[in-house]
Amino acid sequence: MTRQDLFAQIRRKKSYLCVGLDTDLKKIPAHLLDTEDPVFEFNKAIIDATLPFTVAYKPNIAFYEALGAKGWISLKKTLEYIPKDCFTIADAKRGDIGNTSGLYARAFFDKESSGLSFDSITVAPYMGADSVLPFLEFEGKWVILLALTSNNGSEDFQKMKMESGEFLYEKVLEQSKKWGGPEQLMYVVGATQASSLAEIRKIVPDNFLLIPGVGAQGGSLKQVSEFGMNRECGLLVNSSRAIIYASNGTDFAKKAAEEAEIVQKEMAGYLDKYL
Amino acid sequence: MTRQDLFAQIRRKKSYLCVGLDTDLKKIPAHLLDTEDPVFEFNKAIIDATLPFTVAYKPNIAFYEALGAKGWISLKKTLEYIPKDCFTIADAKRGDIGNTSGLYARAFFDKESSGLSFDSITVAPYMGADSVLPFLEFEGKWVILLALTSNNGSEDFQKMKMESGEFLYEKVLEQSKKWGGPEQLMYVVGATQASSLAEIRKIVPDNFLLIPGVGAQGGSLKQVSEFGMNRECGLLVNSSRAIIYASNGTDFAKKAAEEAEIVQKEMAGYLDKYL
Repeated sequence: MTRQDLFAQIRRKKSYLCVGLDTDLKKIPAHLLDTEDPVFEFNKAIIDATLPFTVAYKPNIAFYEALGAKGWISLKKTLEYIPKDCFTIADAKRGDIGNTSGLYARAFFDKESSGLSFDSITVAPYMGADSVLPFLEFEGKWVILLALTSNNGSEDFQKMKMESGEFLYEKVLEQSKKWGGPEQLMYVVGATQASSLAEIRKIVPDNFLLIPGVGAQGGSLKQVSEFGMNRECGLLVNSSRAIIYASNGTDFAKKAAEEAEIVQKEMAGYLDKYL
Repeated sequence: MTRQDLFAQIRRKKSYLCVGLDTDLKKIPAHLLDTEDPVFEFNKAIIDATLPFTVAYKPNIAFYEALGAKGWISLKKTLEYIPKDCFTIADAKRGDIGNTSGLYARAFFDKESSGLSFDSITVAPYMGADSVLPFLEFEGKWVILLALTSNNGSEDFQKMKMESGEFLYEKVLEQSKKWGGPEQLMYVVGATQASSLAEIRKIVPDNFLLIPGVGAQGGSLKQVSEFGMNRECGLLVNSSRAIIYASNGTDFAKKAAEEAEIVQKEMAGYLDKYL
């Protein structure tokens, strides 16, 4: 999916919501546990219900990997079920030396090899250029590089000051601009980091930002939108738990849709106001 | 496996060799491709052949993940085949926010959940404390934290100077000492970084170091051993391609054993000299 296609979907649905499919057997409604593939049944119902309000879906791979080979089958079925006009994100946070990152790229981009073909993957920057470039070699696919994450641990290294006076995450943004442009590269910036968004936009004015941390983690959609939006929206705001676990009864999908619609309505307002 | 157990194995086999099971369908001998599970058949033969010379096995997870659910089944069979007195490393380079890292820990440590139970996992430090701690909560399991990797990309961020005058990787070593001790925490230091090993040993004198990059990547076993060894050896030196792809004919296992034995003999000499 191109940047233009993504922006077209955002305008059409008046939404830049990404629903995080962090599907945990310990949290999904009990009545689903008797089905053959509870993870897929849950995801299917969530996708059906939230589709009108959502432009992207982001399965966090840890939830599937925790179930071993079975989890990979649920993931494959889920990805195949997501309509093609939705942007798909493998939230995998991978990264290895060059030839090995190439294999992770095959795992998430090359359907013939692994059965999966996501539009994008999240990548960790610690190992540098050659750990990221193999993902960028896949035409039409996106890398979403971790910059400033939503967790407390972001203070440990990402917000350390470098000799140059910048934070490490600012160096990551600057350095990575040499690796790819805004047609291929997005960045993860936690919603809990809204105060840094204005500065981040000075470094990467045109790139899309994937913003997790709204909802359960406490980030503000209003602030994120005010400081982060650019001329082509430039934001995908993720919500996982607040939407998918809005209820754990038989009405879970209906409740998820209601939560997603509330977020979408708020987003429609910001799109009118800031764009 | 405890640190003492690992050291006991090293003394018994006079070896601190780790064999990297980077098993790629494009590189294994053609005659194996007709079997039901070529990846497992290859690994099985490599394990049988190299076992006398090796104390650890390290499948790089990218190679298995690239094959989707099938790859996870090969990985599970491989792990089950490795004798219990060998140290097993899931080279996965994972890391996510706290609750999600907990799921990755389940994926590689909790057999009931995923089918896999490795002794250790490699973890990326960029997301900080709460991305690493969930792995350390598994009793008897190890975290091997990326510090200074063997690839060129290590120059991009790991070797950036911080405001304090230290390199980022030195900060990672120092900070992580608060998270766990040498009974639970090892570090990845590339063999191509031997010149930094003496400095690294000042920060983490007692921890085991996992050293990839000997062989195909050009690191020197002699230098690594001279600057990196401590009183309990403290080194696991990994070789992948140079051993497992020593031949791509029907003699591949025999040739792998010969290569492993050459490395082991050299290691026995250093154990005598430096320990």
